[in-house]
Amino acid sequence: MRELPVGTPRVGIIGGGQLARMSQQPAIALGIQLHVLADSAGDSAALVIPATSVGAATDAEAILRLAEQVDVITFDHEHVPQEIVHALEDAGHAVYPGSEALLYAQDKALMRRRLGDAGFPMPRWAVVTSAAEVASFGQWPLVLKASKGGYDGRGVWVVSDETQAGDVMSHDLGPGAVWIVEEMVAFTQEIAVQVARSPHGQAVAYPPVRTVQDDGICVEVIAPSAPHSTGSEEAEELALRVAKELGVVGMLAVELFDTPDGLVINELAMRPHNSGHWTIEGAVTSQFENHLRAVLDLPLGDPRPRQSVAVMANVLGGEHPDLHAAFKHVLARDPALKVHLYGKGVRPGRKVGHVTALGEDLTSTRERARHAADYFQGVIDE
Amino acid sequence: MRELPVGTPRVGIIGGGQLARMSQQPAIALGIQLHVLADSAGDSAALVIPATSVGAATDAEAILRLAEQVDVITFDHEHVPQEIVHALEDAGHAVYPGSEALLYAQDKALMRRRLGDAGFPMPRWAVVTSAAEVASFGQWPLVLKASKGGYDGRGVWVVSDETQAGDVMSHDLGPGAVWIVEEMVAFTQEIAVQVARSPHGQAVAYPPVRTVQDDGICVEVIAPSAPHSTGSEEAEELALRVAKELGVVGMLAVELFDTPDGLVINELAMRPHNSGHWTIEGAVTSQFENHLRAVLDLPLGDPRPRQSVAVMANVLGGEHPDLHAAFKHVLARDPALKVHLYGKGVRPGRKVGHVTALGEDLTSTRERARHAADYFQGVIDE
Repeated sequence: MRELPVGTPRVGIIGGGQLARMSQQPAIALGIQLHVLADSAGDSAALVIPATSVGAATDAEAILRLAEQVDVITFDHEHVPQEIVHALEDAGHAVYPGSEALLYAQDKALMRRRLGDAGFPMPRWAVVTSAAEVASFGQWPLVLKASKGGYDGRGVWVVSDETQAGDVMSHDLGPGAVWIVEEMVAFTQEIAVQVARSPHGQAVAYPPVRTVQDDGICVEVIAPSAPHSTGSEEAEELALRVAKELGVVGMLAVELFDTPDGLVINELAMRPHNSGHWTIEGAVTSQFENHLRAVLDLPLGDPRPRQSVAVMANVLGGEHPDLHAAFKHVLARDPALKVHLYGKGVRPGRKVGHVTALGEDLTSTRERARHAADYFQGVIDE
Repeated sequence: MRELPVGTPRVGIIGGGQLARMSQQPAIALGIQLHVLADSAGDSAALVIPATSVGAATDAEAILRLAEQVDVITFDHEHVPQEIVHALEDAGHAVYPGSEALLYAQDKALMRRRLGDAGFPMPRWAVVTSAAEVASFGQWPLVLKASKGGYDGRGVWVVSDETQAGDVMSHDLGPGAVWIVEEMVAFTQEIAVQVARSPHGQAVAYPPVRTVQDDGICVEVIAPSAPHSTGSEEAEELALRVAKELGVVGMLAVELFDTPDGLVINELAMRPHNSGHWTIEGAVTSQFENHLRAVLDLPLGDPRPRQSVAVMANVLGGEHPDLHAAFKHVLARDPALKVHLYGKGVRPGRKVGHVTALGEDLTSTRERARHAADYFQGVIDE
């Protein structure tokens, strides 16, 4: 173990993806030492964080060893078994978000029930066990979801008749998962609100953003974006109430449908989230910095935007394996563009980076981000 | 060696101080892999950069090994012997700044001669070998400098008579160094200008900043700050001409005296510099990002300020070994403050971090930065 200055806070992160990687930037600034448990030494975060152990997020022993070296454990993703989180807590380790809160990010059926009971706006939904039950739930098309294990549109299907529902339900559900059917919500746009909350209850909300999805994957985020149905403050208030209701510590992303009748909760994530990447340059304090501050019970940073418009566009893997070949064009065309590459090998459709453009005007700012992302993806060669 | 995505640029940095450490933040964003040669595994940069080798900046073999693993070599400090830089260049390795340019950051006598000959404004100066020569140079007080090896005010003395000059000159000069005497320049303020320049000659200038020194150590930087004697554009122009004249690649900091008769060159640094730390949050592109872009011959980023005022205050080691104990107060008092701690053990007077406040008003922004730095240093307990 390298010798650290007296009092250096140490944070353990389970999972070595790009969220852990981007956490290293504020950790460097704040003098916080990160320790990562990654699936492999070539993982996105492992390339930039010296204290990386290799192990699975289901490896209880590796996680306990990690916990013994740090002040607090947090997560790059939600795929850590509840038994392990409980074992950490029982052994007296600080884990944020804790098992009780994390449950609702891991299990959509429990989340729907708990938040629905508490009066939060939900789509109509039910647990189902057969295609016939789906058919009797309501008008087609309907949404079928696995209650656990999905991300980026995986584990979510839109079905138009009983045969399609039956086909989907022939997939193997993971352990403890159930099928959920939901009405298709007629939304005008998708909104996300990030909040940070600390153990002693301080909380701050970032302004609502609009997320643009393509085939279930977020491709673009426009910040800030007020919901059509309510004011921004009501959306922030809703997200803060969810965080408090569930006892979340760290970052919480609340994904919402904006409908003519108001906001409806779609999904939750209890960690820095793709819809908050714009905050790295676009807000006074990034979601990654506030996540670290929150789990260490430090005072939270100012979440306010620094410019009128921020547009974040994801870079998805395309035809070309060498993303850096696009640098000369992308950086020369737009000297103010902020580029983030995750150190991940290119595979079609894989999130391998993102770009953020900041500006005063939505149309031109959006064009700048879109052009750069498209160029990285090989969609345009100009 | 961990497997990196195709085309990943690799940059080797000689020296593991806070400049290498802060370079890791934009390297993470741009998907650039840094390799550091540090004096010890506990060095500031070694704590946050996985590919760290331990070796001295005078160890030719270690540096050649580093060069073989990277696309380009650059520097955390100037204390790398010319022979080694030449050996790297002779072996065909890219080194930026190159030996020819670096010479003028390493040797103040050569810098004064070269830039003086080229018509740049210099203090009156001479090489001297005895106290008697100092006495005959001009009116006391005078400035005595070792031509090589100094930093942060070390290697610079103000002397008021021949006895004092003799005392100073009894110090051992490093190899190849000579004594320089200079007139005391009657300046109204000290100014620094950062420029970035790439191998094919693209160059950008950051706006001039005012540096506030205490006992030869920079304690505060106020950005932007126009010189009293000229416009900001003339100062930027001067720094750009110095970079071109000396063939600098990477960041160049030109430290200037602002006098009633115009700007006079004080010192040069060919790397990111303390006077440019405000650019991390205060400019569209930080000096650390532009240094990496420059040495990789990538298009340079926009150097413009993002807000009206940025004040950077250095955190110097004080009484208390635990800097993080100050976090609760400092972060709670000012949620918009940006804190940078370098992972260095506290020693009185040692630069262990810095804070940056951004705002629209000089007085209040300066108070915020000053308060935080003082609190970290234990100067105030309120």
